[in-house]
Amino acid sequence: MNIVLLDERQTQNDIWNITAQRQLIHLHEHLNIQIGDTLKVGILNGKRYLTEVIDVSEHVISVKPLHEELIPNKLPVTLIVAMPRPKVLRRLIADSVTLGVEKIILLHSYRVDKSYWQTPFLQQLESFIHLGLEQAGDTQPPKIEVYKRFKPFVEDVLPQFISQDCPAFVAHPYTDIPMPVAIDHACSIIIGPEGGFIPYEVELLQKNGCQVRNLGNRIIRTETVIPYVLGRLFC
Amino acid sequence: MNIVLLDERQTQNDIWNITAQRQLIHLHEHLNIQIGDTLKVGILNGKRYLTEVIDVSEHVISVKPLHEELIPNKLPVTLIVAMPRPKVLRRLIADSVTLGVEKIILLHSYRVDKSYWQTPFLQQLESFIHLGLEQAGDTQPPKIEVYKRFKPFVEDVLPQFISQDCPAFVAHPYTDIPMPVAIDHACSIIIGPEGGFIPYEVELLQKNGCQVRNLGNRIIRTETVIPYVLGRLFC
Repeated sequence: MNIVLLDERQTQNDIWNITAQRQLIHLHEHLNIQIGDTLKVGILNGKRYLTEVIDVSEHVISVKPLHEELIPNKLPVTLIVAMPRPKVLRRLIADSVTLGVEKIILLHSYRVDKSYWQTPFLQQLESFIHLGLEQAGDTQPPKIEVYKRFKPFVEDVLPQFISQDCPAFVAHPYTDIPMPVAIDHACSIIIGPEGGFIPYEVELLQKNGCQVRNLGNRIIRTETVIPYVLGRLFC
Repeated sequence: MNIVLLDERQTQNDIWNITAQRQLIHLHEHLNIQIGDTLKVGILNGKRYLTEVIDVSEHVISVKPLHEELIPNKLPVTLIVAMPRPKVLRRLIADSVTLGVEKIILLHSYRVDKSYWQTPFLQQLESFIHLGLEQAGDTQPPKIEVYKRFKPFVEDVLPQFISQDCPAFVAHPYTDIPMPVAIDHACSIIIGPEGGFIPYEVELLQKNGCQVRNLGNRIIRTETVIPYVLGRLFC
């Protein structure tokens, strides 16, 4: 947690109160926060401030904003990823948010186990986003969309994202053309499930404007390939 | 698990037997392996083969090698990382191995909690390496070294790794010079602990030949920054 994220409602007065259990535990136990310390505080969907701690108790930490700070830039990328195993979902969302992904789409695919869509974690996406924002020092949540049917998404929705200035790259081993490096424009990245997209899916993606690109001959987990490909594309 | 990794001792005869509980569970439950299936099998520190499954039982799966396959290339990088929290260690090692890191060094640093060095996971590094190799389809384990004292490592050991052709980059926010992109030579990457290196440590690293480089203004977790920086450096 590198900033404390508050709701707009919590920042209406001159003094702001931090009352969420998760945040208090971190501030007390990890940072041993004391009166007079400075603390970075962000307003969800708003600005970010350096604040001064003016009161500390077990259930409330009160801060006073000192001055505004810069919010880190987002990466101009839409990350389209086959729905991962539930235990991976939290990390995948938090990491993508930390790295600055602008929009995340969770997509069904043939090799996605249907039971994954039943996970209660899908109801907790907002909290995973907050974790990612607090890690990065960001206040602007990305958009997240969920599509439980592959074909209608690829045929009807995906083409709207794709243009000359905003290509869509599918990370897939069965091509010799490498994934681009250090691009200076927006793009979509499409990451398949464990085991990869099936040939029918790759063909449908290509038919609808996607470019299949190779990331080398190592097989990398979904949650690891996301920072790997973002580091490569946006330098 | 994208290959099954066997010891050299297990591959002395014409028929090779897979008997490790972890591997059997994966092959039975995830792949529902049957006689006649092909299976990728690697020999630790040796070659990699496509094999044919010739016998399947609860406690043994027997395979016959068909032909040799290529092993993926390593990245010419030494990853020097401040000892992470124990629960991060397994993933950090497995991911670094999956991505092809040639050598990993775990290092103490001021902000590393001393209790981290007591973790039993440090005795299990070999099994984390095997997980990473089986994910990547690789058979060549990287070297791992552990240095529990920062100053002697930085003054006496680190300079041996550094040369004109093999610089050492410290990922650190307090510089404007960006981390290089798509280099075509070997290097060392040095990643600090949560909270970063202290100024004394950064100065000592610089004094001993390291170059401090910026990775942007987002604060990224150790386990996430590793694939991110590898994707950027080795394209």
